[in-house]
Amino acid sequence: MRRVKLTLQYDGTAYHGWQVQPNGITVQGLLQEAIFRLTGERVLVAGSGRTDAGVHAIGQVAAFSSGSNLRVDIMKRGINALLPPDIRVTILEEAAPDFHPRYDAKLKEYFYLIANAANPSVFMRGYVWHVKACLNVEDMKEAAKDLCGTHDFSSFRGTGCGAKNPVKTVYSLNIETVGGAAVFLPAGFAGEIIKISISADGFLRHMVRNIVGTLVEVGRGKIAPEMAGKILGAKDRRLAGPTAPAKGLFLGKVIYNL
Amino acid sequence: MRRVKLTLQYDGTAYHGWQVQPNGITVQGLLQEAIFRLTGERVLVAGSGRTDAGVHAIGQVAAFSSGSNLRVDIMKRGINALLPPDIRVTILEEAAPDFHPRYDAKLKEYFYLIANAANPSVFMRGYVWHVKACLNVEDMKEAAKDLCGTHDFSSFRGTGCGAKNPVKTVYSLNIETVGGAAVFLPAGFAGEIIKISISADGFLRHMVRNIVGTLVEVGRGKIAPEMAGKILGAKDRRLAGPTAPAKGLFLGKVIYNL
Repeated sequence: MRRVKLTLQYDGTAYHGWQVQPNGITVQGLLQEAIFRLTGERVLVAGSGRTDAGVHAIGQVAAFSSGSNLRVDIMKRGINALLPPDIRVTILEEAAPDFHPRYDAKLKEYFYLIANAANPSVFMRGYVWHVKACLNVEDMKEAAKDLCGTHDFSSFRGTGCGAKNPVKTVYSLNIETVGGAAVFLPAGFAGEIIKISISADGFLRHMVRNIVGTLVEVGRGKIAPEMAGKILGAKDRRLAGPTAPAKGLFLGKVIYNL
Repeated sequence: MRRVKLTLQYDGTAYHGWQVQPNGITVQGLLQEAIFRLTGERVLVAGSGRTDAGVHAIGQVAAFSSGSNLRVDIMKRGINALLPPDIRVTILEEAAPDFHPRYDAKLKEYFYLIANAANPSVFMRGYVWHVKACLNVEDMKEAAKDLCGTHDFSSFRGTGCGAKNPVKTVYSLNIETVGGAAVFLPAGFAGEIIKISISADGFLRHMVRNIVGTLVEVGRGKIAPEMAGKILGAKDRRLAGPTAPAKGLFLGKVIYNL
């Protein structure tokens, strides 16, 4: 048996998330079906982590074990031919027999896009949270500083989270304004997009979306920037902001060698 | 009666083009329906030109006459509330009583996007023509030079074109490679996007898509760059390349005052 590592990009709009479910089409389910049709094998495709319904990925990592002796380039082309166009294997490579995309991950990076404009681009509508109120990005950056480092992130933990340990290390939490998808928009036309990138050794359920929801409350002036650290310290989900919508969230990359 | 000018952005994926049709949902039809629901008036919304099924717009211009006395900001918000999210009025303003978006247009600009990469972004799949073969952009630029200026564009005219005069003036035809939608893609990840922008005093049916199809044949090495001018001069559609797919085409802007 060989171990095959996949790097994946998907538009989560049409899917009930990563993980196979009894009701609803999932990315993991479609991958397993494509591999079955290609190789005749019923495999378990392990992911680096679940993504929720509607969440996107540009660098999800997955792996499966296979008795097939198809060449990597043939296997990649074959799987892609059997997947819908909104899911693509971008890299397919051999991995160590014991490689596990979740347990071996050292760092994961998510990013979240906010269209902070009156007229956001129609082409971005499935990939941003549209916040009309003008956000104070400097206040958001100030609040974000206090969320970096090793902390108990219970205040940003979604209900139903299965993690044993709520302590995670956030390596970076950057907020930047980027020119809205430059390809589509004339300069300055649709305002800017606020991109919030978070890298950590692991994430609790809804942690990114709850942090983003809280930072947006800071940007709106509803939560003072210096409160972010206090909300974190209180370990009480009720103090933080609402959960930001799934459609603005992207799993950016998973790193195995720091 | 007042004359109302609209600037529109739409994702053409779901629509049978601009113009009202007996079968199929169109942008013009949805606009007229939204205005009827808002004002009770059955109006004709005139566009700067038709866009084909599947073609997008970031700066389509349209106009209609109305007896409504709704304020422009209220009217804009009301129409947008009654339109689907893939069609947005970005500007709504008063115009001269005799303003006509088609007859008064001095210049129109279209652009076309080509994903020239093995693994184009899934997020761009509805907005680019995916060409796998590596295109020679320098050759394409050389060919494009000969298509600028005032010419009879019959070689690039689609069947069923209703224009009386095939002579048009192409003011500019630029080809540039742009970093694939920077928001979604890690630098260098999905290769580049080739953006072909064409401005002219008017366009024949399928003219942009036929020019793009021909330039791609040049980029592939199937047509020599110096042949472009000869194809133009022959006024024979059979000599030019195939019609590029609709989904990569955007109506960029319409200019009324040069």
